[in-house]
Amino acid sequence: MKLAALETLRQQNPIVFNISNFVTVQDVANGINALGASPIMSEEITEAEEMVQMASAVVLNLGAFTERQVAQIRRVGQLANQYHKPLVIDPVAVGAVKYRKQVATQLLADFQVDIIRGNAGEIAALADVDWQAKGIDAGEGNQDLVAVAKACATKQHAIVILSGPTDVITDGKQVCKVFNGTPLFQLHVGSGDMLSSVVGAFAGVLPDYFEAAQTACATFASAGERVAATLSAEQPGTFAAKLFDELHLMTLQNLTETAKFEVQP
Amino acid sequence: MKLAALETLRQQNPIVFNISNFVTVQDVANGINALGASPIMSEEITEAEEMVQMASAVVLNLGAFTERQVAQIRRVGQLANQYHKPLVIDPVAVGAVKYRKQVATQLLADFQVDIIRGNAGEIAALADVDWQAKGIDAGEGNQDLVAVAKACATKQHAIVILSGPTDVITDGKQVCKVFNGTPLFQLHVGSGDMLSSVVGAFAGVLPDYFEAAQTACATFASAGERVAATLSAEQPGTFAAKLFDELHLMTLQNLTETAKFEVQP
Amino acid sequence: MKLAALETLRQQNPIVFNISNFVTVQDVANGINALGASPIMSEEITEAEEMVQMASAVVLNLGAFTERQVAQIRRVGQLANQYHKPLVIDPVAVGAVKYRKQVATQLLADFQVDIIRGNAGEIAALADVDWQAKGIDAGEGNQDLVAVAKACATKQHAIVILSGPTDVITDGKQVCKVFNGTPLFQLHVGSGDMLSSVVGAFAGVLPDYFEAAQTACATFASAGERVAATLSAEQPGTFAAKLFDELHLMTLQNLTETAKFEVQP
Repeated sequence: MKLAALETLRQQNPIVFNISNFVTVQDVANGINALGASPIMSEEITEAEEMVQMASAVVLNLGAFTERQVAQIRRVGQLANQYHKPLVIDPVAVGAVKYRKQVATQLLADFQVDIIRGNAGEIAALADVDWQAKGIDAGEGNQDLVAVAKACATKQHAIVILSGPTDVITDGKQVCKVFNGTPLFQLHVGSGDMLSSVVGAFAGVLPDYFEAAQTACATFASAGERVAATLSAEQPGTFAAKLFDELHLMTLQNLTETAKFEVQP
Repeated sequence: MKLAALETLRQQNPIVFNISNFVTVQDVANGINALGASPIMSEEITEAEEMVQMASAVVLNLGAFTERQVAQIRRVGQLANQYHKPLVIDPVAVGAVKYRKQVATQLLADFQVDIIRGNAGEIAALADVDWQAKGIDAGEGNQDLVAVAKACATKQHAIVILSGPTDVITDGKQVCKVFNGTPLFQLHVGSGDMLSSVVGAFAGVLPDYFEAAQTACATFASAGERVAATLSAEQPGTFAAKLFDELHLMTLQNLTETAKFEVQP
Repeated sequence: MKLAALETLRQQNPIVFNISNFVTVQDVANGINALGASPIMSEEITEAEEMVQMASAVVLNLGAFTERQVAQIRRVGQLANQYHKPLVIDPVAVGAVKYRKQVATQLLADFQVDIIRGNAGEIAALADVDWQAKGIDAGEGNQDLVAVAKACATKQHAIVILSGPTDVITDGKQVCKVFNGTPLFQLHVGSGDMLSSVVGAFAGVLPDYFEAAQTACATFASAGERVAATLSAEQPGTFAAKLFDELHLMTLQNLTETAKFEVQP
């Protein structure tokens, strides 16, 4: 865990190229912009190579993928590999929709991803573990979450972030748990997508992607927790507005005081 | 009017599948999520059948329809009929744009809709009544709003919600008027689209769609009215943030105290 | 500078047709709606002619242009010329992405634009002046901003708005500088796109586009400055919500007291 990377991020202002979910794209752009990164979005395959070249990191969100978008995602993923840019994937709803799992599986064979960020249902699907997902929600299952995350990491040869009340981050062997957060994240639809792009922002400044994933989770979850502490009730709209404030204003000292995590070697 | 359905909705957490307007999709997702439903969105026709099958209700927003989206809307509407899922349509701007009316008319012949939610200009257009709409706004006309709504319901064999300062809900014979609301709804662009999806959420838990439509209008308009009562001035941005808060926090007791309506058998 | 046009705008409620950036479309619609204009958006070329005919102004945002969108932008631009509607273009990222500059250059040859609104990097690119842009950000260069803006206006035969800490507005000869603003604009991703559509709204009520451009900049920058003055810290989320409030609530008197500008004939 390298919390000080928050300051590196703000100094370096990494460009994060997002193939984004049309539902939450505005929040994602504003979230990483508030944090200190520079978001770029594009839906046109012709400019994909230029975008990847200028980017410090690439984030592919499978939140709403038409056939055209899937073709663009494939191309951008391959370009990220070619130009050695850190590549984050957010496999939205692959646990609930068979078509999405099928396409995601093919994509993960077409390029090598560095970090996968999803909820329990999504990570279980990519690990081929039984799980009951529900729409875009995590759903329920009897499996141990750490085992699910490890299985996915091993199968996909990637760092895995399994998001939830406790975030589980693993490279397949080592495990980091981040205990920060707030139930308000689930009351705001763009939270998961925003975290995935925050992961991209940190991967753009930290060459060790396992550390980048941990630090991104601790930073994002701490920001949410700090906002929730200022609210007198579960106010999802006010929470969203203040989350952007906190992403911009949170200092390294505040982050260090708030972050609660453990790393198991 | 079954105000207690608010609690049913929160217990059942219905999945609402939205073919959504790209302008307001994020607000719509957040609105019904805050209320207690589970939004899913998709732009890909290949996954339409899976989406419809898992959904408790389907909402088709004609807010921005490319030829591709129209094809998807047609397919999703037909699937909703096939799987007997409640089907809500929001005919954005059919009163102002001839092309939209023409396409909407064809769509309404290709599947059977259960509930139509629009402003006066849009409902008048689908009733073939003269009206002067203006862009996305309701516009002006000399017709009696109840007569317009009834004519549309009879012509389209559907429950009709004609939204405005007073919401008129009718099955073509019975009429319910909801008197709650605030002018701030018109100052926030996504309000109508959000209401349409709230209607879908209630139709996902109330088998009587006339009651679902009434309850949705009373709930949404009461939430807005309660937020407006806390503001010292017409603040559209603050209103939008607080509307999400209130959709999540409003209790059945608050709703019962606030809702003002009459049902004419 | 015709600050009183704010009241004209609110009386006339001009319809502004936006070909919009998918990242920021909701903010753009809400921004000009809060100000007093009526936004319409569309992605379908078949309805382009009707949309242009009903509009008081047309705004083309090149923020995310697929080949399909470029075709629609071309058609809408030509229709705006044909129907003599004021035409505003926002050349997002043409300074950073070669493909975008190439397409934008071709578009500017296919129709005649009235007003161009961009940051230093974008305006420099359309003036063929050397500049280091960075993604969607303005970047840095050694050129005098007034000279860059004038060169672009002369080359493109259009009013040019070069946005930044000081907005430079020029017809190629006369120059207006608007000194209002706040660094918070850069912390919210949709600010530039929103300004471009506000420019369209004023061009829909002021036949002198140079005056429309000046007044739009003074109004928008003053609104942001007034909001920033109420905040105790750099809060980008709270700023965005309150910006909509202020766009709606700002009076001509408040605007007149806040606006700081100079016009050099």
